[in-house]
Amino acid sequence: MRLATIKLEDGATTAAVHDGSAWRTMASADLSQWFASTERDAEAQAALESGEVVDGGFSNPVPNPRKVICCGLNYANHIEEMGRETPTYPTLFTKFADSLIGDGDHIVIHGSDNVDWEAELTVVVGKRLTQATEDEAIEAIAGYTVANDISMRDWQRRTLQWFQGKAWDASTPVGPFVVTPDELDLEKGLGIRCLVNDEAVQDDNTNQLVFTPARLLAYISEFTTLYPGDLVLTGTPGGVGMGMEPPRSLNSGDIVVTEVDGIGRLTNPITIINNIR
Amino acid sequence: MRLATIKLEDGATTAAVHDGSAWRTMASADLSQWFASTERDAEAQAALESGEVVDGGFSNPVPNPRKVICCGLNYANHIEEMGRETPTYPTLFTKFADSLIGDGDHIVIHGSDNVDWEAELTVVVGKRLTQATEDEAIEAIAGYTVANDISMRDWQRRTLQWFQGKAWDASTPVGPFVVTPDELDLEKGLGIRCLVNDEAVQDDNTNQLVFTPARLLAYISEFTTLYPGDLVLTGTPGGVGMGMEPPRSLNSGDIVVTEVDGIGRLTNPITIINNIR
Repeated sequence: MRLATIKLEDGATTAAVHDGSAWRTMASADLSQWFASTERDAEAQAALESGEVVDGGFSNPVPNPRKVICCGLNYANHIEEMGRETPTYPTLFTKFADSLIGDGDHIVIHGSDNVDWEAELTVVVGKRLTQATEDEAIEAIAGYTVANDISMRDWQRRTLQWFQGKAWDASTPVGPFVVTPDELDLEKGLGIRCLVNDEAVQDDNTNQLVFTPARLLAYISEFTTLYPGDLVLTGTPGGVGMGMEPPRSLNSGDIVVTEVDGIGRLTNPITIINNIR
Repeated sequence: MRLATIKLEDGATTAAVHDGSAWRTMASADLSQWFASTERDAEAQAALESGEVVDGGFSNPVPNPRKVICCGLNYANHIEEMGRETPTYPTLFTKFADSLIGDGDHIVIHGSDNVDWEAELTVVVGKRLTQATEDEAIEAIAGYTVANDISMRDWQRRTLQWFQGKAWDASTPVGPFVVTPDELDLEKGLGIRCLVNDEAVQDDNTNQLVFTPARLLAYISEFTTLYPGDLVLTGTPGGVGMGMEPPRSLNSGDIVVTEVDGIGRLTNPITIINNIR
C-alpha cells in the first residue's frame, strides 16, 4: 500500500491511499493523524472502496511525529569515509517535527556555509513500542519513506554533540510516500541515491545497513517509547560531501534529489543565506 | 510570581499561581497549556484576584514542552572534572517530554547499572523565539525551575552521541515550581545543590555558568524556534558521580534531592531494575 499526505486547493491537506490507479482520500488531515488513529487499517480499506479521488502536490507525509530519531554511522562505507570503527551500538541523535519539510520545498539555511547531504531510508512507526524485541519491532513498522538528513557540518563540528548541526528548522525533506513493508524486499535491499544537480553523489543499497530497521526500533525502545507516526532515520551511505577530497558543500541554487527504489524520490532546491550578525 | 501544576483528587491537574499565602487555580490543566495561551499574564492576575484556593501535591509543572534542550559542559569546575577545554560554543543535546517526571516521583531505570545525577537550573521559555538577540531572549524567559538531568553513563558512553544515555522515559525530575525572573537575582547567582541520601554531592552557584540562560536561548534560536513552555536545561556544576575518584553511581533505594535557592527542591527515590535479556 502506498500512502501520502496530499495538498488541497484551500491550503488544507488530506491523508490519502493509492488504489493502484488513483489517490483516494482518508478521513484524516495527514498521515500523522492517521497513524495516531487506532482503526487505520480498516480506514484505509474503506478509503480504497469509497474514498474520493484526489489530485494535488505531496506534503511531508508525516508532519507531526512525537519523536524523530536518527542513526549515524550505519553503512560500512560511510563509517570508513568518516574514519570510524564498525560500531557495537547504534549512534543516535534527534531532530524535531519542526525540522521536517516535503517534496519540492526549498531548503533555506541561514548562517551555515557548510551544508551537506545524507540520503536515508526512513522507518515510520505504526505501533507503540516499549522494551520491544526485534520480532515485535518488525510487526510495528507501518512503512518506509525517504529523507535527507541535511547537515550543517560547521555547526555539527562546533562541539562533541551533532544535534546543533542536524535539527535546523525546515531543513530535512521527508516523503513523498509511505510504502507498507509488504511491498518492499528489505532482505534483498533497496537502491538508495542522492543526486546534486543530476550528479549521483551517493549510490548504494540499504542491504549494507549495519543495524536493520527492526534492530534500531528495538534498541531505541529499550530507553524511550516509540509511538505510531514517529520517524527513525536509518543513516546514510558513503558519498557525503564532507568525506570527499576535497570536501564539498551545497550552494544556493543546487537541486538535491533523494531517492530509494520502490519508495519514492524527493526534489529540493537549496538556498543559503549568510547574514552578518 | 510562583507558578505550579497541582494534582487534584480526581487524578486531574490544574495550573496554579501563589498569591503570597495560598495557591490559586488558573483556567488551564497545567503550565504547558498555560504558557501556550496568549493571555497568560492577564489570567494570572485574574487568578490572584479570584482563583479558588487549591491544595495538593505538585506535578511536573510543564509536562508537554515541544522541545527540551540541554546544555552540557557549562560550569567551569564540571568542565575541568570531565577533562575538557572551556568551550567556544554550547554543547547541546535533547530529551523528550516523555523523559520528564515531577517532585516525589520514583526514578525507575531498567537496564543501566551506571546512573548518575546532574542538578540543573532550567529555563522555561515564555515567548516564541527565532533568530533572537540576547536582549530578545531575556524578555522571552517566562521563569526558572529545577531539573536533574539523570544520566545513564554506560549508555551515554556507548557511542559518540550522549542522547541515548540522557533521554530515558520518566527519568528527569522537573519542578516543583516555576519562578518568574523578577523574583531571582541571576547576576548574583543562585545556590545549586544535589544531595544523595542527605550527602551534598554538588554544591555550587549558577553565577559560574559559562553560557547564561539568555545566551543559550539566543544561540538555540539561531537554528530552531523555541516556543512558550519549552525547557532549556542549562548544565550541571562539578560533583557528578562519574567525576569522582573512584566513580560513583546511584543505587536502588537512594534518595536524590535537587535544589536551586529561591526556586525549589525536588526529592526523588531511585529504583534500578536490571533485567537479563
